[in-house]
Amino acid sequence: VITVIYFVENGCFSVNIPSEDLLEKTDYVGTVSGSEVDKSETFGVFYGKLKNAPLIRECPINIECRLHDIVSLASNNLFLGEVVAVYTEEKYLTDGQPDIEKIKPFVVTLPDNRYWAIGENIGRAWNTGKVISKDKK
Amino acid sequence: VITVIYFVENGCFSVNIPSEDLLEKTDYVGTVSGSEVDKSETFGVFYGKLKNAPLIRECPINIECRLHDIVSLASNNLFLGEVVAVYTEEKYLTDGQPDIEKIKPFVVTLPDNRYWAIGENIGRAWNTGKVISKDKK
Repeated sequence: VITVIYFVENGCFSVNIPSEDLLEKTDYVGTVSGSEVDKSETFGVFYGKLKNAPLIRECPINIECRLHDIVSLASNNLFLGEVVAVYTEEKYLTDGQPDIEKIKPFVVTLPDNRYWAIGENIGRAWNTGKVISKDKK
Repeated sequence: VITVIYFVENGCFSVNIPSEDLLEKTDYVGTVSGSEVDKSETFGVFYGKLKNAPLIRECPINIECRLHDIVSLASNNLFLGEVVAVYTEEKYLTDGQPDIEKIKPFVVTLPDNRYWAIGENIGRAWNTGKVISKDKK
């Protein structure tokens, strides 16, 4: 669902979900190399429970993970994390739960390189299909 | 990004991406148990390269996988597949590449159980951030 920025450091990493209004900054950190340009000031950083996994202050959702396993695959390494804590702010919640309409994450498609917003609410899960169950009776 | 329907059988499985117009049927197969209701006729099935991984005819994108590994995790098993073939139709392509505006996949959010369409195109990847690179020079 999301563009992910992560760090692996001391057996920890974080998954930070940027919102639409961070699109330019998120794209920027993906286009430049840290060895050529100092991009450390693009985002603010904070630390959570594990003390050594940097989390991005501006992102509405921060998922702090302990590194559980690294699975070596043909093309890449797959990092598996155990979620230790999740951080957000009151303004992204509705009735105490994360609300995608407030978080406003975005997705990217390849190879056409386009970013997409989340669109309309088109139905309720484990409910919309009841029309069919009814037909079958 | 996607609601996934999969089968594991003979060391193969498939990932089938439903489009918005399959929302009711997709929700339906997730709400009823195969042991109580015969849902085998909800979707049409075809077979690909591996001959034994069923693929869903109605879904715009079908990803046929050979089972590579099963990683046992605390709450679930993680199935890792090697992509053997991907199937689609001409009508879902633009310039020979999959076009999300034609495929129309959807996402689900939990615990609010809402389905969401893909929204507006909000930018170009590895491009939108150039405004920032320019500022830094």
